[in-house]
Amino acid sequence: MNLLIVLKILGVLLLCEAAALLPSVAVAVIYQEAAVYAFIKTIVIAAFLGFLLYSIKPQDKMIRYKEGFAIVSFGWIAASLIGALPFLFSGALTSPVDAFFETVSGFTTTGATVISNVEALPKCLLFWRSFTHWLGGMGILVLTLAISPALGLGTFQILKAESPGPISSKLTAKVSDTAKILYITYLVFTVVMILFLWLGGMPLFDTLCHTFGTLGTGGFSVKNASIGAYDNVYYEIVITVFMLLAGVNFSLYYLAFKKRSLAELWRDKELQVYLGIVAVYILVITFNLYGSVFSSFAESLRHAFFQVGSIISTTGYATTDFDLWPDLSRTLLLTLMFIGACAGSTAGGMKVIRIYLIFKYIQREIGTLIHPRLVKAVKVNDEIIPESVLSSVMSFSLLFLLVFITATLLLLTQNLDIVSAVSAVACTLGNIGPGLNALGPTKTFAPVSEMAKCLLSACMLLGRLELYTMISLLFPSFWRK
Amino acid sequence: MNLLIVLKILGVLLLCEAAALLPSVAVAVIYQEAAVYAFIKTIVIAAFLGFLLYSIKPQDKMIRYKEGFAIVSFGWIAASLIGALPFLFSGALTSPVDAFFETVSGFTTTGATVISNVEALPKCLLFWRSFTHWLGGMGILVLTLAISPALGLGTFQILKAESPGPISSKLTAKVSDTAKILYITYLVFTVVMILFLWLGGMPLFDTLCHTFGTLGTGGFSVKNASIGAYDNVYYEIVITVFMLLAGVNFSLYYLAFKKRSLAELWRDKELQVYLGIVAVYILVITFNLYGSVFSSFAESLRHAFFQVGSIISTTGYATTDFDLWPDLSRTLLLTLMFIGACAGSTAGGMKVIRIYLIFKYIQREIGTLIHPRLVKAVKVNDEIIPESVLSSVMSFSLLFLLVFITATLLLLTQNLDIVSAVSAVACTLGNIGPGLNALGPTKTFAPVSEMAKCLLSACMLLGRLELYTMISLLFPSFWRK
Repeated sequence: MNLLIVLKILGVLLLCEAAALLPSVAVAVIYQEAAVYAFIKTIVIAAFLGFLLYSIKPQDKMIRYKEGFAIVSFGWIAASLIGALPFLFSGALTSPVDAFFETVSGFTTTGATVISNVEALPKCLLFWRSFTHWLGGMGILVLTLAISPALGLGTFQILKAESPGPISSKLTAKVSDTAKILYITYLVFTVVMILFLWLGGMPLFDTLCHTFGTLGTGGFSVKNASIGAYDNVYYEIVITVFMLLAGVNFSLYYLAFKKRSLAELWRDKELQVYLGIVAVYILVITFNLYGSVFSSFAESLRHAFFQVGSIISTTGYATTDFDLWPDLSRTLLLTLMFIGACAGSTAGGMKVIRIYLIFKYIQREIGTLIHPRLVKAVKVNDEIIPESVLSSVMSFSLLFLLVFITATLLLLTQNLDIVSAVSAVACTLGNIGPGLNALGPTKTFAPVSEMAKCLLSACMLLGRLELYTMISLLFPSFWRK
Repeated sequence: MNLLIVLKILGVLLLCEAAALLPSVAVAVIYQEAAVYAFIKTIVIAAFLGFLLYSIKPQDKMIRYKEGFAIVSFGWIAASLIGALPFLFSGALTSPVDAFFETVSGFTTTGATVISNVEALPKCLLFWRSFTHWLGGMGILVLTLAISPALGLGTFQILKAESPGPISSKLTAKVSDTAKILYITYLVFTVVMILFLWLGGMPLFDTLCHTFGTLGTGGFSVKNASIGAYDNVYYEIVITVFMLLAGVNFSLYYLAFKKRSLAELWRDKELQVYLGIVAVYILVITFNLYGSVFSSFAESLRHAFFQVGSIISTTGYATTDFDLWPDLSRTLLLTLMFIGACAGSTAGGMKVIRIYLIFKYIQREIGTLIHPRLVKAVKVNDEIIPESVLSSVMSFSLLFLLVFITATLLLLTQNLDIVSAVSAVACTLGNIGPGLNALGPTKTFAPVSEMAKCLLSACMLLGRLELYTMISLLFPSFWRK
């Protein structure tokens, strides 16, 4: 393990974070909030630590898998530790565990909160909370990536550990170019969404925060009742569409743009399955709600549409208390928490492509039982999926379930009922946000124990970094020469 | 598909079932019960249909995988349909769905019941109920197997579809010998257990029924309060030990007997892991119960010991209402329902060896991430597990979870809450018996809808036949030439 290079890159990361805290200072100045000092103090600390680490001069500049994994894992933890300081310095949160939980929830784009009355927070803190979603969304390290070639460091391994999903993107091989393209796509979406919401009459500040929360598939809102506070169908449609767009593999947008053809998008199997799942879930939930929760079909469809979009994209915004829905709908939403959206998007969860590959894998196995001499390759988009990728998908999926079960059992020692515990782990591991029962969309994570908050913070990080990155750090062989 | 040979073997099976109904007639005669006619009528029907099917003379006597799968699947369904008749003819149950559910539950050694007051049933019906466990336990088809070589038919494929677990047994290759050895072991255990219980003072009739229920890992009792009715620690220890023994791979007993060494048993990795799981679960649940449910440590240990043995062996007997235990213990029992006992035993569930292989598989995957050039084979008992077996274990496990999720979602349309539905599917798919909440150990499956009973019957069959056997029948290619 080349620890010096890891520390140096962490230094770059902290310098970036110091810069990323500046917009919040601007917000504090505009609204003349006292919390401005909390941000200034944090910036000084981040910049000082950043320079200190950046000044390290490692002899060996090689970044292998191991270093990549360490940078990503410690990077998210370090960013969350520093990012938690404004909450503490401003006095908005008094417990360091709460502040860490809230910031991890932000950077991992989860959106689970410990703050019940967000409307009472200073605007600059609300802005920072939502901005962590936006930063986390595309990965703080994609920003770092765009800069690090200038440092003359190998960067491919970071991308490998960072980018979500089992199939390598089809984008250009040059990593810094890739980062730039994803970055520009993300920026364009941000600007377009802000315009859509703002032209619809949403206050500019709310617009910014909800755009950050949507494109990062995070879910922090500036309203206690989340998007439901506006009771505005136009906002809901705009937000749902952008949540669903943020759940699509971003390299598809690049391909569509390069080939000047939207048809390119539809050829992708994962996108087809993703939209198919969305359509089926909306249909079933609408019929389940119609008559039992809402007397109007349109109202049922409206909330089913928003909530399915919100959960499959792992955003977690709510327009209504879906925890009061019938158990069939609640459980369907729970399954969506596991599925998540497409690989290469800003969403969490297991990803649609993995679920699709599991089905293909099982189908092949049954085929082999019926015709023992016939061994077929598994194909997606007319490309043969290598057995090593399949094997990695299967073990990832099973590991996801094992982590889920283990975390749920541990959480059950912390005075939570089964449904609350199951949904709390599902919604943090899948980076969604709100769960069910005691942790439903109208509740917060404030009442759970500090131990439970630490456990759920770990789940958010594990989920966001797709398990292996962090789990391999626990193996002694990882640290051996 | 060679349908004629399938029907001929189903005929043999029905003739065997007619013979297997005779002991119940004897019980009815001894206790002078009117239900004797219900059994006589059923025997006439089974024998008539059996002869009819057996008289078929197929040109092609070849039994391949496909025919094996069809025989096993239709065999269990046919046996359950005929076995349900005594319940209907005697008037003990009026709904055909209820009678079918009860009999499927018997033959699949599940032990889920729709009868709330079993103590009011005629003894002959109680005997038949428990006897279906015993028959189902080693597989009705192992009996058939022992006879079928006389018919000059190929039989290996049946065993392949029947025997539970991913690793082929180490027993002699001659199938009829294998069947005889397993059969004798099973008989010896039966006699020994009857003696143990009887010498302890349990009435002979109860002894027989509980021995059938234990060795088949079924769980039907002759008491409404299950084993708890006796409040007798000696019975509980005997039953727990035999439940655990029934959960061990039976070929290990043969090996130990042949080598005249019990040490042979301990060398088996699956057995080690199985006993390890049992020990850890007993420990954690005991500490969870101590103070919260029972004020005495001994009492906590007593019930934890019995219930862990009962659930991991997928038997389902109860000494207390474990549904009133803390959520941690309830959820731990729920995870045991998925794990099940060893392959090659009479237990259901996913089997310990599969869980063990999943861990080894994930461990290898992480190893490959840390050292990309290092690809290790997965070994159990110093033997390399072929990649095809690993691949089949992974797809089985994921299919098990998919079936579980699908069945749970379907069950949620039938007016059950989440925990009841989840546990109902887990305890039928894993062939345990009682679940949690509305379907806890003091409740029955009577109140659930007929649709739900059909669905859960399918789960019991799917679980008992390890999914693939029945699911491959649903593929059109299965039926093609």
